[in-house]
Order: sequence, then C-alpha cells, then structure tokens
Amino acid sequence: MADYEILKTIKSPKDVKDLSFFAINQLCEEMRAAIINRVSKIGGHLGPNLGVVELAVALHYVFESPKDKIVWDVSHQSYPHKMLTGRAEAFYDDKKFAAYSGYTAPEESEHDMFMVGHTSTSVSLAAGLAKARDLKDEKYNVIAVIGDGSLSGGEAFEGLDNVADFHSNFIVIVNDNEMSIAENYGGLYGNLAELRRTQGKAKDNYFKSLGFDYVYVEEGNDVAKIITELMKIKDCERPTVLHIHTLKGKGYKFAEENKETFHWSVPFDVETGKPSVEFNQLTYAQVVADYLERRVQEDDKLMVVNAATPGALNLQEFRTNHPENYFDVGIAEEHAVAFLSGMAKSGLKPVGLFFGGFIQRAYDQISQDLCLNKSPAVLVIEGAGISGMDATHLGIFDMALMNSIPNLVCLSPSSADETTRMLDWAFKQKDFPVVIRTPASLPKELTYQPSEEIILNQYEVVKKGSKVAILGLGNFLKLAEDVAALMQEKGVNPTIVNPRFYSAIDENMLNQLMEKHNTIITLEDGILDGGWGQKIAAYCAPHKVKVYNFGADKEFTDRVKAEDLYLRYKLTPQQIVDEVLG
Amino acid sequence: MADYEILKTIKSPKDVKDLSFFAINQLCEEMRAAIINRVSKIGGHLGPNLGVVELAVALHYVFESPKDKIVWDVSHQSYPHKMLTGRAEAFYDDKKFAAYSGYTAPEESEHDMFMVGHTSTSVSLAAGLAKARDLKDEKYNVIAVIGDGSLSGGEAFEGLDNVADFHSNFIVIVNDNEMSIAENYGGLYGNLAELRRTQGKAKDNYFKSLGFDYVYVEEGNDVAKIITELMKIKDCERPTVLHIHTLKGKGYKFAEENKETFHWSVPFDVETGKPSVEFNQLTYAQVVADYLERRVQEDDKLMVVNAATPGALNLQEFRTNHPENYFDVGIAEEHAVAFLSGMAKSGLKPVGLFFGGFIQRAYDQISQDLCLNKSPAVLVIEGAGISGMDATHLGIFDMALMNSIPNLVCLSPSSADETTRMLDWAFKQKDFPVVIRTPASLPKELTYQPSEEIILNQYEVVKKGSKVAILGLGNFLKLAEDVAALMQEKGVNPTIVNPRFYSAIDENMLNQLMEKHNTIITLEDGILDGGWGQKIAAYCAPHKVKVYNFGADKEFTDRVKAEDLYLRYKLTPQQIVDEVLG
Repeated sequence: MADYEILKTIKSPKDVKDLSFFAINQLCEEMRAAIINRVSKIGGHLGPNLGVVELAVALHYVFESPKDKIVWDVSHQSYPHKMLTGRAEAFYDDKKFAAYSGYTAPEESEHDMFMVGHTSTSVSLAAGLAKARDLKDEKYNVIAVIGDGSLSGGEAFEGLDNVADFHSNFIVIVNDNEMSIAENYGGLYGNLAELRRTQGKAKDNYFKSLGFDYVYVEEGNDVAKIITELMKIKDCERPTVLHIHTLKGKGYKFAEENKETFHWSVPFDVETGKPSVEFNQLTYAQVVADYLERRVQEDDKLMVVNAATPGALNLQEFRTNHPENYFDVGIAEEHAVAFLSGMAKSGLKPVGLFFGGFIQRAYDQISQDLCLNKSPAVLVIEGAGISGMDATHLGIFDMALMNSIPNLVCLSPSSADETTRMLDWAFKQKDFPVVIRTPASLPKELTYQPSEEIILNQYEVVKKGSKVAILGLGNFLKLAEDVAALMQEKGVNPTIVNPRFYSAIDENMLNQLMEKHNTIITLEDGILDGGWGQKIAAYCAPHKVKVYNFGADKEFTDRVKAEDLYLRYKLTPQQIVDEVLG
Repeated sequence: MADYEILKTIKSPKDVKDLSFFAINQLCEEMRAAIINRVSKIGGHLGPNLGVVELAVALHYVFESPKDKIVWDVSHQSYPHKMLTGRAEAFYDDKKFAAYSGYTAPEESEHDMFMVGHTSTSVSLAAGLAKARDLKDEKYNVIAVIGDGSLSGGEAFEGLDNVADFHSNFIVIVNDNEMSIAENYGGLYGNLAELRRTQGKAKDNYFKSLGFDYVYVEEGNDVAKIITELMKIKDCERPTVLHIHTLKGKGYKFAEENKETFHWSVPFDVETGKPSVEFNQLTYAQVVADYLERRVQEDDKLMVVNAATPGALNLQEFRTNHPENYFDVGIAEEHAVAFLSGMAKSGLKPVGLFFGGFIQRAYDQISQDLCLNKSPAVLVIEGAGISGMDATHLGIFDMALMNSIPNLVCLSPSSADETTRMLDWAFKQKDFPVVIRTPASLPKELTYQPSEEIILNQYEVVKKGSKVAILGLGNFLKLAEDVAALMQEKGVNPTIVNPRFYSAIDENMLNQLMEKHNTIITLEDGILDGGWGQKIAAYCAPHKVKVYNFGADKEFTDRVKAEDLYLRYKLTPQQIVDEVLG
C-alpha cells in the first residue's frame, strides 16, 4: 500500500470516475496512509481528514468539479479533496509537503472555491455561488460540506436559515463525526445524536424545521453507500441536507480512540501514537492554565469559558478537575462573550480564553455586550503575534481591533511573572472588562525586570537613559532590550519602557519622555495600522520629538516563517538601530 | 383615557400586582396611548412596543423583577417594561421624554439588566445570569424576551443552542409578530408560520429540535391568557420556550396596516398617520439608492443585499422594482458578507448596504470570507459619523475597524457627486473588496470641487497653499474648507487635500506636502484611536513636520447632541485654528 499505486494515478477528479469499485476502496486506504504520512511528519489536522476520505471520493465520483462547486467548511478537512484534485504528492511525497497548504486555496487549484480557515462559513459562501448561478440561469450543483463541530457557529445557522428558502439546487453535507460540545447532548448536537439513534427519523428534525429536504446515511465511511445517496440527490431542485455519520480518525487506532488529541496533531510516531517532538519550553498557555488552577482553589466564583479549544489552550486538566467552573460553549465566540458579560454582571469572575485569530468573530459582542455594559470579565487572548501560520490563522490583528473599543483595558505581559500579576490585577478590579494578550512562546529572560505594581494605564521605565526612548510592548520588551544593547555599542544609552497597556497612552510618561529624549521608538507584535504605536505617534505628532513605529505590515501572509517576517518588517535589532540612528 | 389614570399609579412592578382584572386591561390601553404619545412627538420604535404591552404587563404581574431577571432583546421593545418600572412619565409627560432613553439602561433602573441596542443578544446575556445563579446556588427565574426579527441572528442561535443544555430554569419568550424576512417563509420564519398554523403542534419544531420544552400561545395580546401561561412555566426547571403570537403595531390602525413604516417612525400626526416633519434634504442613502436604480438598468449582474433595513436605507423602491436583483438576508450580517463574497467570486456585482454600527458584527467575515479571498464585492456603510444617537447606535467605530483589514479599499466621499463616482470606480474594478462610507446627511456645497478621476490610493490637492496642509476626509472636506477660510483671515493660506481613501496613505503626496508645509492637519468623522489620521501621524512622525489629528474620542456617548460632541472633540473651525495656530 505504501507505494500509493492508485493514488499516484489520480491527477484530477475525472481519474476517480474511471476506477473500479475495488480500486476505489484501495484508493481510500492509500489516501489514509498518505494523510498519516504527512501529518505524522509535519503535523496537521488528522482526525477530521481520516473521517472524510470516503466522502471526498464519493463527491468527486458523483459530481463534476469544478463545474459543480464544492465548498469545504473550515477546510481543515479538505486533505482528501486536495489529494483528488492534483495535489496528492503533498501527502505521499515528503519533499512536496510544503508545496501545498492544509486548507483550500484557490491559488493552488480551480477545484478550491475559497481560502477558508475559520469555521461555519461554507453554507453562506456557497449560498453566494448558488445565487449567482440562478441569476445567470446556469445549471450545476452547489455543495457545502459542514460538520466537525462547525454547526454551532452562528454564521452556519444564518446561512442555513437563508438557504432553506432558496428554490433551487443546494446541497448541504453534514459530516457528523459526533464532534460535539457537551456530553449531555443538549442543543443541536443533541438533535444530531437523536437523528443518529433514529436513523434520521426523529421527530423535531433541526434541518427539516428550517425547511430542508433531509436524508440520513448511517454508513458515512462506506464509499459505495455515499455514492448511491449522492446520485439520488444530485441535481435536486430544492435545498437538501445529506446527514452522514462518520468516524473521526477512521482507520488510525490512536486517532479513533483519542479524537481530541488527534483533531490537530504535532508530528508523531505512527507506531505508538506518541509525539515525536518534545516541547519543554514553558508557554504562556501553561502559565495561564497554572494560574487558573491556583485561583479556582481560592475563589469558587471563577468561571473559565472557551470556544471548543481546550486542548490548544491547555485547559484539559482544569476541565477534568473543575467541571463546575468550566464551560465550553462550542464554536460560538459571539455567544461566549455575551455569556461572559452576563456572568460578570451577576458577580462571578468569568474569564474567557480565545485565540487571537478567532476572537475577532466577536468584535460586536465585545463592544456592545461587554464593554458598553462595563462588565468586568477577563479575556485572555492566546497565540497572538507575528508567526509563520496560515493566512487564516494569523494573530496580528487583535490589538488593532481591541484598542479602539471604549472601556476595554488591554494589557500585554512581558514575561511569565508579569502574566500572573496582570491576571491578579484583572480579577481584583471590578470596573472594566480586561484583555490580556499573550503570544505562543515566552521570550527569553529579561535583563531589566518590571516592578510588581501595576497601575491602570501607567507605563513604567525599566531602565533610565537619554536621547532615545524605546517602548517595547509585551513580549517585545525583550526586543527593546536587544535594541538598547546594540545602541549602547554605538554610544547611545536609551531609556527602556514597559508600556503594559496598549489600550491607552500614558500622557504623563510621554510628556516626561519628550522632555529628555528626541527620539521615541515603539515596538509591537502586531500590525501597525490601527495599532498601539500609532497612538503614540499621534500623541507626539504636534511636538518636536521623532517617533518610529515598528510592527507588522497590513497584509495576509501565508506560512511565511516568523524570522522572514521579522526581516521583512525591519524588526531585527540591527535593522531597527540602522533605521533610527541612520 | 388620556389622563392616564391607572398608569400614573404604577411606580414599580408591585403596583401592577395589586390591580383588578378590569384595571389591568385599562392599564394596557393607557400604555398604548402613552407609547403613541411619545413616538408621535419625538419619534421612536412604535410597532414593536405596541405589540408587547400585554406581554410586559403579564411578565411583571407574574414575576418578581428585579429578583427574577428579564432581558429584552434589542430592547427597542422595552417601552412597556420601562413604563411599569418607574419610568411611565417619559411616555405620558412630554416634558420628561428626554429623561429616559428608548432602550434598557441599567443606569435608569434596577429592572434593566443590560444596555442593549443590537439584536439577538438576549439569550446569551441571560445565559450568563442563569449560569451565575446556578453556580451561586440561588433561585429565581431568568427570562429572555426575543423576537421581532431577531431570531435570524447567529448570536441568538448560539445562545439557544447552549442554553438548551442547561439543566435549570431558563425561559425564552419568543415574541412572534410575523416580522420575517422573506414572503415565502423559508427558514426559521417558515417554521414559526407553521407553528402558528398548527397552534404549536407542527412536526419539526425548531425549538424542540434544540431541546427546549415548548408552549404555544396564540392570543399574545390577551393579557389574561399570557398571565395564565406564564404562571404555569414560572419556576420551571428546564429551558422552556413560550412562543406567543402578537400583533405588531396592535391598537394603532396605521401601524397595524403598515408594519414596516411604523417599526421605527419619525414624529407623525396621530389622526392621519402621516409624518409631521418634512425631510427635504437630500441624503446619501437617497444618492446611493438612485445610483443603484440607474445601474441595474444597465447591468443585470448587480445584486443588492441588505440585512433587514430596507426602509432606513431607502431600498423599498428598488425591492419593488427589481425583486430578482434584491436580497434581504434578515438580521444576519455575518451571512450577508460571506454571501456577498460568494456572489462576487461567481462574477456578479454584489453590493451590500449596512449601517455603520451594525456591520461591525461581521468583522471576521469581512476579513476572512471577503478580504482574504479578495472578492470584489462592494459594501456601502450608511449613517456613519459623529451623531447624537444612542450609545448602541453610534457610527464612529467603523473606520478604525475597517482600515486595519488587508486588501480592503475604503473610500469616503465628500459630496453626492463623488459618491456616485466612487460607486462607479468600485463596480468597475475587479481586484478588491471596496467599502464606501457615507454619513447620514450631505454636507453643504463644496467650494473647491474634487476632480472626477479617482486613482487607487491617491489623495488629491483641491486647493494649493503653503505652510499648513489640511486633509479633510469625506464629509469633513467641507470642514477643511471652513478651517482654511478662517486661517486665511489670519494670513495663512492652507493647502486643502481630499484624501478619499482611508485605508491607505498616499506616500508620494505626503512626501510632497512635507516639503512645503510645516503643519499637517487631519480631519475625520470617526474615532481617532486606530483611525486614518493616526496613520498619517505615524508616517510623518520620523520627520520634522507637525501633525494634528482631529476626530472623535474613544467613548460611548448616549444621545449627546452632535453639536455638543463637535465642541467636546474640538471639531469646530475656531477650535481647530486655535489649537494649531495657537
């Protein structure tokens, strides 16, 4: 099997159509091996993709992509689709791993409609394609594949609600791999469970309630069965849901047994299922998790909320140890934020943990439900900052987003110790919603330690100097030290400032700095446009002092290494010194 | 009746409990008269409030607010609630109108849990209250009132989906006034229609599919009937939906007959139902609507999308004349943006029209679904800028939000003519998603007309001068002219620039300006933090030129008059001249 005999012959979907039934089954096995090959070596989404191998084969067997349009939700389950559309080598050939991303990408293939990495968008995006088709009086199938937890997102509901009223072809494939949010199966995931139990015959069918025609297929990993059912609904003239029951992690024992761990995996040993890389480095996520574990011992009003990412946020232990104080809302960031606001208003001490790239879905709720109401909930943004991530998973936009919201106090810690002090500060005060923003990994040890006291909106000088003042926000305080060290070699002795708060400027501090310095440098680990540094520049702009802002450009980068981005954005100490001292 | 005999005796909800059945019915009639009194004189939400008079009375008769918590969705239907909680004078006493807002406001009353003005949030906010109650082991009812179109918003679904899994008291009142999005009744509103038709007995009940207990009441304007049903579900120990059928506009003939017009109304003559104020001023909304009417004649690929606000956006005629080219997604901004992206990808020319304060709900979709995919859809933001609106309806945040999104081209026109030229430009190009941002009313005639040609990211000098350059964005180009005129009196002859694009800075232009000017002034009709002016300040900050940014402070203001805000923000010509010239 490991020679991928059939897979190597698949250059486009039409090659799938020529295969015998026997060959199709072998193809599925080879695709599984190829997925495991890639993910075990470079990491990626394992479980979701192993579960939809048969679905992807059946879709390309039955439909005529790209004439028929298939939109994959989140697109972290598009590996099989990618293999069938000319990109199989990215899975079986180790040298070609980097040539293709782990998400759909129109630049890679005409079979990919959109670049997608956030959840719950497929139905709405596909709705646009279907509407365009109808208005242009064209004929083809439009298919949205959704599932793997995505149905709980509000955008998915909005899309389904609208599409159900279309009077033409629209196919929604619900990939139901039992990925759900709560063990008691309330809500929509309870309805899916009931539909599985009754083989689709349950009274009160969510999809039928919205107006969809509905078909249930229990054998979601039986390629012949799915082909048969897809043939029946192909060219349907009404919005139709095909609900298939699949096995997440199908075909790889460890992934079947531990669905959460293998949803997304670091490189691992195929024989043992154990990670093949070691992470000894302390992360901010662990610092935060340890803090919450200590805090809940003293304060049973602490409530930890997250949106379906307990693994990546190191919350699994907390979940096990403190089920009463833990709530996973599923993929539903909007609800999460309003929910946090309600809890804070009632005197709880709620904290929501989110990734920087995902919390942006709740901007309106942060502004209206939380900040307009001054509910003192705490939001911890994790994994933020410049990174080599996919374009859909960048963590550089959150600061620009948050710092224009009234009443919101935003802090960025420079070290593990300061993270816990900021958490203490945030939980102690009752006047404001607070954001604490942390990157993925801790910076190296600081030379100049910030003081322990945190005072609202006050920056702190950690080292006094003259002429040049360097303000290094959060983890870039270390960068400020490095820049200062280099300047010292050139005879300049800069002042170093730990701003802590990126939602406000410390006018007193800036006035003092402007008296004794002719140059101010700001360093921030996020985009410059709309960011914190530009606030500083604007405050100083009517005065004589020169201000230099350093941070990320306004662009979507796709898997460009962080080191390369630092160079591109002139964020190395040498580049900064050259730019400022000339 | 007009002496409000009973209403005047209601100082708190307990006064309702002492009333006889006869008196309660009279109270309802007096409340209706009071609502009509207020709205006919100062404008406001009429239909939604007339429809829930009996519901509000029944809720306060049965429950013990504020111990029991009632959360009103959007809260534009909270007038009756406000009357029963000590604020009736704001409705029957013309002199007290201004003392209370048209939304729930915790600062006004302990019976108001949250300040709310965006839709679909009540279930999630109330979920937080319920969770806090359970964790603290307290006992009381938590009630979320939703409806009037709000159920189509994704946040409402996310909330319902989560709450359905709670194992304790939670009451959702669905106020079903038949306010729906599409005449064919697909989607959720189709399910509500089917539930009404079957008196709640339809197979495939949306609420039951999510796991709620469910009760239907046809007589939603019969106070005795609602009281009876509420008594039954009071203290229920499971999440329960009470679906009541009400008549929007109930009791005022014109509002019953024309629900859309009287959803929110300007002041009107009670006898005739006609507006009692005249609006002769041309608005941006009309300029845009006229443009779309002309354009669709030539281009049948034009598709106009909006989210349940056709009236306020002057789209009613377009809807009537071009049903094929018009799509109202209901209150579902997230879906709207992804839907626009899908249509643009398929070669249509879609344009979405939104209010500045509401489009922020779709930030993530604008970033990911639209801009990451570079789908050339057009978004028109209307009613933006500094205004005397409620804190929930401010239009000052959108520019800061949009200008940090890569690939998004954002323009702000300075006049009606420039609006149409910008729309032409946006529809002609195929490379970028485009935002065109307009305030509510057109500025006075410009002295210096911009040229007709629009070139991507290029600013334009409309009047050459020296020393001081004034960049007046969009409708503030007129303000720039006024400032320049005042400076002229002081012997300064400023250059005036029409920047047009607030998503980018024109570096060539700024470099030229910096050569011949020692001062640059930016004027923008939105918040300074994260805004366009700060980009200019940051670009110029390493140079000698002084930059002054003028715009709004980062704050939620609540019904503060625009003139007062201009003064507060130093946005009058005199203040600007004083600040800059000293």
